Amino acid sequence: MSTDPASRSGAVVEIDLAGICANWRQLARRSAPAACAAVVKANAYGLGAAPVSRALAADCRMFFVATLDEGIALREALGTAPEIAVLNGPLPGTAGEFAAQTLIPVLNTPGQIDEWDRDREGPRPGGAILHVDTGMARLGLSAREFAAMLDDPPAIRWRAVMSHLACADTPDHPLNQRQRERFAAIAAQLPGVPASLAASSGIFLAPSYHFDLVRPGAALYGVNPQPGRANPLRQVVRLSAKILQIRQIDRGESVGYGAAHVMAAPGRVAVVPVGYGDGWPRALSQRGCGYLGGARLPLLGRVSMDLVAFDVSAVPEALAHPGAMIELLGPHYGVDEAAADAGTIGYEILCGLGSRYHRVYRDAGEANEPT
Amino acid sequence: MSTDPASRSGAVVEIDLAGICANWRQLARRSAPAACAAVVKANAYGLGAAPVSRALAADCRMFFVATLDEGIALREALGTAPEIAVLNGPLPGTAGEFAAQTLIPVLNTPGQIDEWDRDREGPRPGGAILHVDTGMARLGLSAREFAAMLDDPPAIRWRAVMSHLACADTPDHPLNQRQRERFAAIAAQLPGVPASLAASSGIFLAPSYHFDLVRPGAALYGVNPQPGRANPLRQVVRLSAKILQIRQIDRGESVGYGAAHVMAAPGRVAVVPVGYGDGWPRALSQRGCGYLGGARLPLLGRVSMDLVAFDVSAVPEALAHPGAMIELLGPHYGVDEAAADAGTIGYEILCGLGSRYHRVYRDAGEANEPT
Repeated sequence: MSTDPASRSGAVVEIDLAGICANWRQLARRSAPAACAAVVKANAYGLGAAPVSRALAADCRMFFVATLDEGIALREALGTAPEIAVLNGPLPGTAGEFAAQTLIPVLNTPGQIDEWDRDREGPRPGGAILHVDTGMARLGLSAREFAAMLDDPPAIRWRAVMSHLACADTPDHPLNQRQRERFAAIAAQLPGVPASLAASSGIFLAPSYHFDLVRPGAALYGVNPQPGRANPLRQVVRLSAKILQIRQIDRGESVGYGAAHVMAAPGRVAVVPVGYGDGWPRALSQRGCGYLGGARLPLLGRVSMDLVAFDVSAVPEALAHPGAMIELLGPHYGVDEAAADAGTIGYEILCGLGSRYHRVYRDAGEANEPT
Repeated sequence: MSTDPASRSGAVVEIDLAGICANWRQLARRSAPAACAAVVKANAYGLGAAPVSRALAADCRMFFVATLDEGIALREALGTAPEIAVLNGPLPGTAGEFAAQTLIPVLNTPGQIDEWDRDREGPRPGGAILHVDTGMARLGLSAREFAAMLDDPPAIRWRAVMSHLACADTPDHPLNQRQRERFAAIAAQLPGVPASLAASSGIFLAPSYHFDLVRPGAALYGVNPQPGRANPLRQVVRLSAKILQIRQIDRGESVGYGAAHVMAAPGRVAVVPVGYGDGWPRALSQRGCGYLGGARLPLLGRVSMDLVAFDVSAVPEALAHPGAMIELLGPHYGVDEAAADAGTIGYEILCGLGSRYHRVYRDAGEANEPT
């Protein structure tokens, strides 16, 4: 006899694919006439690159991943049609594999350009995306390297030229306009090559940041691209966990590791099977919360590897009982709120969502098991 | 043409299985005559439950996981011989699956005990481990619930009785002795049932904490069980990442998101393909480091999702070049050091080790691909 995965699992992540697609369409409308890609690196920010990309592929024609392995897996999931670009570019010796899988490398360095241009061993390399740095000082050609490349251009068909904004979530930061001006000057030297600068937050800066192609990632998944302003995007993730045990704790008793929390009054504590081993940050110790029946449940003590405790003293026993579900992420407590309590950003909360959760993908109101 | 996984991957985790086995033997010697189990929950603290447990199974006869799904996967990896206990116990309706997979549940609540005792639908449930709380206020029977159970004992064969220390890494904490005394009184009421209290740090408190069975986890993987004292255990994890690009940055230029780091002098920056999308904590922004050629490389700016930057200005160009490997975890910078910089504990660093890394398992000096 074998139980179904949902009842075996004490914690469930529900992913609203229809919501992700709606977010993509909103971002595409806002960016038009620029084309709109989708960034699905890091397993679609922890939500599942294959199901998320298959849902988006109804509208979206171009996907970005970070690594060659991610590109190979996504090509298998999506088939031959959509374009897949690999942001980190080819490591030495992998140009042939990019060509074989019809992956578009982003070429970030003179060395990557040289190798891509000269590789003759595998199938003939196809087009590539040129990455020029304009103020991030991470990947991409420097201004000097870009000038040198123009003096002695390689025989590469540029599918696009791109750069990346460092401070797009801070609209008033002077670096934004400086990067835009530098990028416009660079793009002007590659006439006919589509230009791409904006990711999620950049889309919201101004239409002048859109150029020919935008590359939203976090905003697809409900992270607010404009911190401090109302979030125009749908929340697409819900994390809930089953109460394993309710404990009646006396005043003065401690809860969890290090006896870090001491009860100021007698109370009831609910223990659920989620912990930092599931990517639920230990930084939420004594700071995070859950929700049950609309009530906020303070997180008590330290987050352990596999368990976390919530104060359910204020919730009727008829609601807070073993088997009841506590919401850890959802309408009451979104990824940005959890991130703020953990001292990080929503991106890290999403990427951390662990492999022990049972995952349910919902599409237009229907629930589907992952395939 | 297809390249091998190691050259496709920009970052490698090497796991020293022989070191893990040596750590287990050291802990077993220190705990004798108590028996020594191995805790391999959360995918063996991120290191791979199947390869780690197969290596340990040469000596170790009992394994602990957290969830039923982990138990099922481990049973498949280990075959029928070793005992596998599931700390979170059975969720409603799963007792038959425990019996079918010969998994030993830890029964934490009166409800779990009732269901295990009464379940007659599936194969007849076998023995179980009783968990009694002595001061953690997480899982386990309260003193009152334990007394009630003794008054009306269920027909369960107790394979062991266990409890868990809240402050074992703080030897002087008064709760340690209180928990030991409470647990000794509980165990005395179940004569003939093996008793288990100590996990990694508890082993080092005193032999009086060993009882009949110890359950080390973190110490197997090199986390120091006695913070502030010399670590007697072997480091078993090395994380290294390939330099994608070296950037020459002028004085006054900023590096990374938010322009958070501004160069105080001209310098060279190395970018490697590791980020919080790989579980490398964003909390290491501006605080962490890497090592190359024995030199400490400050981590510059913010950790991004897929990339992180190090200052290689002090390292000769002959060493710090694209393709060279920077050590992110290893002999120079152990899990406890990285954890201290990130404001967390080594456990969370290990559990976070992501799925994009290429993993190499080393056994007695030899490297093996994962199977």
